[in-house]
Amino acid sequence: MSQTDLAAIVLAAGEGTRMRSAHPKVAHRLAGRPLLGHVLATLDDLGAGTVVVVVGPEMDAVEAIAAPRPTVTQAERRGTAHAALQAKPALPAPPGTVLILFGDTPLIRPETIRAMVEARQSAAVVVLGFRAADPTGYGRLVTDAAGDLDAIVEHRDASEAQRAIDLCNSGVMAVDGALLFPLLDRVGNDNAKGEFYLTDIIALARADGHHRCAVVEGAESEMLGINDRAQLAAAERVVQDRLRAAAMAGGVTLTDPATVTLSMDTAFGRDVTVGPFCVFGPGVRIGAGVEIKGFCHFEGCIVEDGAVLGPYSRLRPAATIGPGAHIGNFVEVKKATVEAGAKVNHLTYIGDARVGAGANVGAGTITCNYDGFGKYHTDIGAGAFIGSNTALVAPVTIGDGAIIGAGSAISDDVPADALSLTRAPQSTRQGWAARFRTHMKRLTGKA
Amino acid sequence: MSQTDLAAIVLAAGEGTRMRSAHPKVAHRLAGRPLLGHVLATLDDLGAGTVVVVVGPEMDAVEAIAAPRPTVTQAERRGTAHAALQAKPALPAPPGTVLILFGDTPLIRPETIRAMVEARQSAAVVVLGFRAADPTGYGRLVTDAAGDLDAIVEHRDASEAQRAIDLCNSGVMAVDGALLFPLLDRVGNDNAKGEFYLTDIIALARADGHHRCAVVEGAESEMLGINDRAQLAAAERVVQDRLRAAAMAGGVTLTDPATVTLSMDTAFGRDVTVGPFCVFGPGVRIGAGVEIKGFCHFEGCIVEDGAVLGPYSRLRPAATIGPGAHIGNFVEVKKATVEAGAKVNHLTYIGDARVGAGANVGAGTITCNYDGFGKYHTDIGAGAFIGSNTALVAPVTIGDGAIIGAGSAISDDVPADALSLTRAPQSTRQGWAARFRTHMKRLTGKA
Amino acid sequence: MSQTDLAAIVLAAGEGTRMRSAHPKVAHRLAGRPLLGHVLATLDDLGAGTVVVVVGPEMDAVEAIAAPRPTVTQAERRGTAHAALQAKPALPAPPGTVLILFGDTPLIRPETIRAMVEARQSAAVVVLGFRAADPTGYGRLVTDAAGDLDAIVEHRDASEAQRAIDLCNSGVMAVDGALLFPLLDRVGNDNAKGEFYLTDIIALARADGHHRCAVVEGAESEMLGINDRAQLAAAERVVQDRLRAAAMAGGVTLTDPATVTLSMDTAFGRDVTVGPFCVFGPGVRIGAGVEIKGFCHFEGCIVEDGAVLGPYSRLRPAATIGPGAHIGNFVEVKKATVEAGAKVNHLTYIGDARVGAGANVGAGTITCNYDGFGKYHTDIGAGAFIGSNTALVAPVTIGDGAIIGAGSAISDDVPADALSLTRAPQSTRQGWAARFRTHMKRLTGKA
Repeated sequence: MSQTDLAAIVLAAGEGTRMRSAHPKVAHRLAGRPLLGHVLATLDDLGAGTVVVVVGPEMDAVEAIAAPRPTVTQAERRGTAHAALQAKPALPAPPGTVLILFGDTPLIRPETIRAMVEARQSAAVVVLGFRAADPTGYGRLVTDAAGDLDAIVEHRDASEAQRAIDLCNSGVMAVDGALLFPLLDRVGNDNAKGEFYLTDIIALARADGHHRCAVVEGAESEMLGINDRAQLAAAERVVQDRLRAAAMAGGVTLTDPATVTLSMDTAFGRDVTVGPFCVFGPGVRIGAGVEIKGFCHFEGCIVEDGAVLGPYSRLRPAATIGPGAHIGNFVEVKKATVEAGAKVNHLTYIGDARVGAGANVGAGTITCNYDGFGKYHTDIGAGAFIGSNTALVAPVTIGDGAIIGAGSAISDDVPADALSLTRAPQSTRQGWAARFRTHMKRLTGKA
Repeated sequence: MSQTDLAAIVLAAGEGTRMRSAHPKVAHRLAGRPLLGHVLATLDDLGAGTVVVVVGPEMDAVEAIAAPRPTVTQAERRGTAHAALQAKPALPAPPGTVLILFGDTPLIRPETIRAMVEARQSAAVVVLGFRAADPTGYGRLVTDAAGDLDAIVEHRDASEAQRAIDLCNSGVMAVDGALLFPLLDRVGNDNAKGEFYLTDIIALARADGHHRCAVVEGAESEMLGINDRAQLAAAERVVQDRLRAAAMAGGVTLTDPATVTLSMDTAFGRDVTVGPFCVFGPGVRIGAGVEIKGFCHFEGCIVEDGAVLGPYSRLRPAATIGPGAHIGNFVEVKKATVEAGAKVNHLTYIGDARVGAGANVGAGTITCNYDGFGKYHTDIGAGAFIGSNTALVAPVTIGDGAIIGAGSAISDDVPADALSLTRAPQSTRQGWAARFRTHMKRLTGKA
Repeated sequence: MSQTDLAAIVLAAGEGTRMRSAHPKVAHRLAGRPLLGHVLATLDDLGAGTVVVVVGPEMDAVEAIAAPRPTVTQAERRGTAHAALQAKPALPAPPGTVLILFGDTPLIRPETIRAMVEARQSAAVVVLGFRAADPTGYGRLVTDAAGDLDAIVEHRDASEAQRAIDLCNSGVMAVDGALLFPLLDRVGNDNAKGEFYLTDIIALARADGHHRCAVVEGAESEMLGINDRAQLAAAERVVQDRLRAAAMAGGVTLTDPATVTLSMDTAFGRDVTVGPFCVFGPGVRIGAGVEIKGFCHFEGCIVEDGAVLGPYSRLRPAATIGPGAHIGNFVEVKKATVEAGAKVNHLTYIGDARVGAGANVGAGTITCNYDGFGKYHTDIGAGAFIGSNTALVAPVTIGDGAIIGAGSAISDDVPADALSLTRAPQSTRQGWAARFRTHMKRLTGKA
């Protein structure tokens, strides 16, 4: 639900040299989603109307993440106010409230921003603050007796009394749309670095005399900005802990939560059990009562109620595991449906296939879905039994209830209820192994 | 060794709605064992005689965990004293000491309870207390100059001075058997919730004038009660840390202890090395000098001295790995014995089988033990050599020293020292692949 | 670069009974390297000349780690000064500075030792100290107004004022080479244990009147000495955290750093991504832009730029993965080169082999490299296509662009661009499966 009275400018022009990466900073991933994507998802959640992303030069990757939202380019890095000002052409008539957020600060919760938007109804500018455990280095939010914001004072400029303040500036703001660009236009760059700072709009608004500025507080953990890979890992831990807590609160047992990696959209039914060492990539939906035994890696897949998986199961995109089905160890399923109650228990690759209800796929079965050019379908009927170490050369259909003999390579369709196999006769040579060993021992000198 | 002078009542009637589960709370598992099972194991360790478990209505799962111990049902939830009173018919003549424990508080150590039982010799009631880091919300244990218990005061009823007390009530008690039910009978429910509280027996005993009440202290970490999945995970961490510390103290190297999951009964010999990411389910016994390379999942199995396993080995129930044997990556062993010095190194399923001493099982070998109806045995003789990608169709016997050619499907027995294989002749068509590619490129337009 | 003015004595005679191990304490491993090896590597890094290792009786394993450095044996355990004195014959003419280090204290950083060596230029003895969070039990370093070391006072002998000192003795020293053995010769054993203590040389040097003693401070975390497996695990965590931080600082994304185990020599290019649950054993070099999807186990291998690996890939020694190549799930590569752009995606063992550029190796392929006596080579040409579930019986050569049919066992060489396979004709018996089920149901009584 789009809120036409709310727009946002997301500053994402930083290169992030401390990431030591060929990729722009905000394109790095957190819980499987780019940093910028987290901020954009939060804005979607709030129903923001126009969202303008300010990118640096040659940041196609960031534009792709932002799309279809408009982007503007900050050609030179001249400070945050300068960056925000680039959004002006894309926001010719700003709505009531414009948020200014940072693409590298992905942990701020929607409810925190919502509180800012509400506070903005009675203030010209709302700054997001936080109580820092160690405020050293942060700009301090100096408030009056009513709690209104008087000034933002940088650490180096702060008096002893001001340094005792633990309420710090996150940089995030909600600004009256009518005032935003006029204020930004007036920001100067008469400072050590010669940059235009967004925080200066507070002084300008206060100097006008009649503008109230306000502070909304969030948690310090929300404000974590990401400048290097260690901070990226720290943010990942925050996100994962949120996701794990939510899963447990919803009735999922995580035997060892610290060893389960989730994605933003992982969905669980009730009474799911997840063993240690599991990775849930994007797009995974797990039904009720599912047991996941550990060492599993899932992405883009659906697992229905009561299925049992792992250890060491890998489900790749477009895998669907039906109710009560079993997927066992060292099994990979890709773009395939394993129907209700079917069992694929060991050392198997199922790709581009259907495994019918109640079918049993033996250990070491491979669906040969690729010939170097195209991908082909394998259809295994309900109740079929595929003997171990079998190659099913697609396209091929195994009828309902058919049995395939172990060690076969099946390229012709098999009718329902038939037996099919490829098997050369077993040939045995008495004593050959003994003679071979004698020969080899003589040759190699080994005992 | 049963202690006829000691009985226990375990309160396990809670549904645990905050678990958001279809299963009763005390049936959830910790280190592979139900919560209630931990409490019962502690009582077994103490040699308690009669142990009565108080369950809620329709808690068959809890009764099954309690069996063969007697259970009584608390039909309505009317408080802890009411719950304990339900045990009366099952304890018509209580012994000297009756413990009252909680099925959802599984971390109390046997030595802590033992101290309570000893203290009970000279006190009518012994309450288990603990020093809380943050006592807010807990009932406080008010003691006299001699350290005897005067009263239990709930947080909401406590004076400022009493709130400064950090000695808190765990709820666990040891009571003189002769006094227990008379005291419980006298507990009233004249309180906000209209419930009968077990803690009230202290005031009743003290009011009698001649009964001494005592406190035994345990660690706060022992008192963790489990009401939701986050607390379940926290308790799991406590148990795992205890098990890991015990393993290391006994001479096991855990490279990264935080990533090794143990069970209550995991047994290790000396100089075992366990790499990262390993799960030991119930019933695992590991001999001396065994090397486990990480990513392993074991349950119900025996590994003898000097064996080398992993990474990515899975041993399922009734697997026995002989001295010096090797089990390698992506190998599953179930209900099978791999004898001394045998090697099963890669991508193999061994189920319902024996692998003789010194045998070598090639990569991709599958014992085909199942035909959809029964399970059949594969016997591989000592010193046999199974060529790679072989299916052994059980029941089948491979004699000592026999060699099986790669890629075979062996269904007939093979005598000792023989060579056996199934192999169609290799047929080669010159230039076919080049023609196929030309054709497919034309067809698909791919380069 | 050897520094002829610097020698070292490393005390490594302790048995380490608290390790409960058949192996000497300093032979236990940290990040894949023996404890003693860490100390020796630090000395190599400093360019120390002669390094003498003092071992206990029958410590061949320690001598092997020390080799080719000289070792001397301390036959009886008579204290640290006695141990250091054993090095005298191996250091007949000590250089300017002699370090005395401990084989079980592996975390001291080279820069810390370097500061000691520099401080030694203007002091007779330099002691390595640290500020202890809880100094209880440690010897205290008593300094004068100038910060020079006056005395080392053991905790039990310390006055109240001395116990308030948090600067503690690590035991590590740098000593003027000309003074070392004369001082050690004068150390007596008139104390409770009757042992000769190295710390006594401070009192002796100070008693001489004209010798300045100095303190260099290191971090408490560097001083962790290893006496049991829990301390070994704690030290492993310190080392791993150092290695992880260095990798991230260099431009590697570790999604969950706590679940990645590195080795001292793991080398990463820029923009490598490492998913959760990965183990990097010794000798691994990863190129730029490589993606490692989690659950991987690597040792002694090279991965070139842009390759994609995992989840569940195992690379063993002498595996080389070429640029842009793909190694997928449940794949093991050993002593083999997978050339540029080749794909080995599922359930495969490649050992003693070459996989040519752009080749595609199907699921379930096994190179049969072993016949029980020798290892043989498999050569797969560029652009070849190996059908699934194929056994390649080495020695064997598959020509460039050749195609192998699924389910084959190939033992004869295949020319370039040819198709080759071994396949018995597919035989199908209508209705056989239905009859089998009827028969088995009757026999087993199963539905």
